[in-house]
Amino acid sequence: MSDVHPTNQLNGARRSLPCDSALRKRSAKVIPGGMWGHMSAKSLPPAYPQFFRSAEGVHLTDVDGNSYIDFVCAYGPMIVGYNDPDVEEAAGRQQARMGIANGPGEVMVDLAEFLVETVPAADWAIFGKNGTDATTACVSIARAATKRRKILVANGAYHGAVPWCTPWPGGVVAEDRAHLLYYDYNDVSSLEAAVGEAGDDLAGVLVSAFRHDARIDQEMPTADFAHAARAVTDRNEAVLIIDDVRAGFRLDLGGSWEPLGVQADLSAWSKALGNGYPIAAVTGKDWLREAVQTVYVTGSFWCAAAPMAAALATLRKLHRGDAVTHMARLGEKLRSGIESQAAARGIGIRQTGPAQMPLILFDDDHTLEKAYLFSTKALQRGVYLHPWHNMFLSAAHTDADIDLTLEATDAALEAVADVFG
Amino acid sequence: MSDVHPTNQLNGARRSLPCDSALRKRSAKVIPGGMWGHMSAKSLPPAYPQFFRSAEGVHLTDVDGNSYIDFVCAYGPMIVGYNDPDVEEAAGRQQARMGIANGPGEVMVDLAEFLVETVPAADWAIFGKNGTDATTACVSIARAATKRRKILVANGAYHGAVPWCTPWPGGVVAEDRAHLLYYDYNDVSSLEAAVGEAGDDLAGVLVSAFRHDARIDQEMPTADFAHAARAVTDRNEAVLIIDDVRAGFRLDLGGSWEPLGVQADLSAWSKALGNGYPIAAVTGKDWLREAVQTVYVTGSFWCAAAPMAAALATLRKLHRGDAVTHMARLGEKLRSGIESQAAARGIGIRQTGPAQMPLILFDDDHTLEKAYLFSTKALQRGVYLHPWHNMFLSAAHTDADIDLTLEATDAALEAVADVFG
Repeated sequence: MSDVHPTNQLNGARRSLPCDSALRKRSAKVIPGGMWGHMSAKSLPPAYPQFFRSAEGVHLTDVDGNSYIDFVCAYGPMIVGYNDPDVEEAAGRQQARMGIANGPGEVMVDLAEFLVETVPAADWAIFGKNGTDATTACVSIARAATKRRKILVANGAYHGAVPWCTPWPGGVVAEDRAHLLYYDYNDVSSLEAAVGEAGDDLAGVLVSAFRHDARIDQEMPTADFAHAARAVTDRNEAVLIIDDVRAGFRLDLGGSWEPLGVQADLSAWSKALGNGYPIAAVTGKDWLREAVQTVYVTGSFWCAAAPMAAALATLRKLHRGDAVTHMARLGEKLRSGIESQAAARGIGIRQTGPAQMPLILFDDDHTLEKAYLFSTKALQRGVYLHPWHNMFLSAAHTDADIDLTLEATDAALEAVADVFG
Repeated sequence: MSDVHPTNQLNGARRSLPCDSALRKRSAKVIPGGMWGHMSAKSLPPAYPQFFRSAEGVHLTDVDGNSYIDFVCAYGPMIVGYNDPDVEEAAGRQQARMGIANGPGEVMVDLAEFLVETVPAADWAIFGKNGTDATTACVSIARAATKRRKILVANGAYHGAVPWCTPWPGGVVAEDRAHLLYYDYNDVSSLEAAVGEAGDDLAGVLVSAFRHDARIDQEMPTADFAHAARAVTDRNEAVLIIDDVRAGFRLDLGGSWEPLGVQADLSAWSKALGNGYPIAAVTGKDWLREAVQTVYVTGSFWCAAAPMAAALATLRKLHRGDAVTHMARLGEKLRSGIESQAAARGIGIRQTGPAQMPLILFDDDHTLEKAYLFSTKALQRGVYLHPWHNMFLSAAHTDADIDLTLEATDAALEAVADVFG
């Protein structure tokens, strides 16, 4: 997720965004670099706004009043629509009665019960705020349960932004990763090799729901890989951990590896769980209950009741509406439309990963100039795509949204064809 | 913060809390041990409820309908009153327009500007969700800025709940703390010794706003210690980090060491910042701006706009109302009242720390039996105290609340005198 600053002039005449520009100037004075983290617009084409004013359904409006059909969904959290009436009603009602207290509300038990009922690999749940809270707790629980140290992670995978996993080297010391060993996603032999390297110190294997590393083609897990991950952890009495933070509730409401018939021992959830309300969860199998109770994880707001009410309302709505099928169908419609538009112009593109979490990359585009031009042109026609990070469909997107989006992508691909031949 | 289970029968006949008991049974099935972290009622006398139904002003109501004047304030976040109308109005208005998006709202800049204006040691701010997010980011920034590794922390201090700092050993590997060195709070010679041990690898010194370790007497920082912490970091071009997560905005709205005339290079904030809405912040000095931009810290909900609106409303209200003076005055009134009540009965107690963050411990009470009896009796009279963790006053407490509380503590101390002579 490092910054990208293509020097290409073609894609980037910065639009007139006077309010956004003024806010960036103010922000640069009181925030280092004006912004930080995955929402920094420095990693996007210059036409993209940094600041937003409102959000409703699938529409975002920037501070200059430009509205977009959004396919980034706040980088995943939005799943039933911004400002969804059911979610907001549930969260607001809870907040009016009790936001935070000296302990949780009944809603925490309701939510844990719902997860245990609907997620086959979940015998229990605990909650946090960040996806990183969940992945970090999973690593600690695996180590506590096994009294071993080595955690296997895939090369290039993103599991959060604290020193053991953050993608940049700044502030990280070697010891933060002393007991990580690496394999290649979907490569069983590399996984076996890492298991061998861990020897009798293997605590766990951490897998992403699918390979969703930025800037490279996405990959669904192969059945071989998923079963091998389960087999090597079983054989070594180690812990299989799935990082379902980004993909959770978009591929399968019971967990992203359910269709593969593979259950992890621990699952990390966050992003879409509360439709934007800050919440994360770890769910796991019965045999880890004792270990969980030996690990001290907590946070000041982890029992906040409104995000739990939001999560329960979000999950119920997803289950009621057969949301996964809807997102997959619209994702396929978008994908096949773009495929046709590109093919008609002889533009080589690669659309990878699950249709409801699409990534579009252009052939021969190492500098992302084509991707920047394409996404900029779509943006200017009111469609917010991401040039190098996977995108997200939501249950709130409609056929009409996809139709409008395809009009924008058609024009954007025409611009790519004009410039790059 | 480990569990305490006194076997003493005197304090503990569990009250009839049928709804709480039923919820605990349900919870035990779907949450390991029924609850985890600092809000687990297992660390409190058995009469304490685990679950709450509503919160308003300074009053908490448990799921069985018992109401309490609360002096724990959700362990710090509540500072202007539960369900404060100004905070809820600001947060609700923001949430209705935009909760989360693909970038922040203008409110993030407003909040950063407010902190820079009102906190003398703050030239900039970034935001997170947990106090642990803030303390961990401070450590990373210090290491990135200095290209050194050693961080000095006080023995026994709490700085969060991830492996480098969590108070329990479960899930922690030795390497998580490979570059921590320890000193004793308020002990300048131990600090100097640790600096010597760090040698040319000293990245930073981490200090709590005051010594607020659980179960032992609190200590305000001495001027000598604070100035020494500043001097050793200056001399070594290292970073002075203040953990103001727990104390922030209760001792001084400009930062807890402002009265000492000592400015840290980095400050970690959370708890009271948003009156219960999940938000944390790191503020710092200009010379660290470049380093911040080399550290990748982020989270899915870090730009959520409603908690930022809540924070701005909370800070403005604290400034308008001269809240610190109010909290200190009421804390002193409570303290002196309890002091008189105990002295009249010849009960030896120690009330330590700032009056607005009081801790009450009994002499000759290593098993906490007196503290448990005292707090249980107060609870039964409608006052929620904590037997071994510092408590919190808020701007919403009134003289009438203190008067009612002193009636309860008088009866509770009478019970202690009856049993312990």
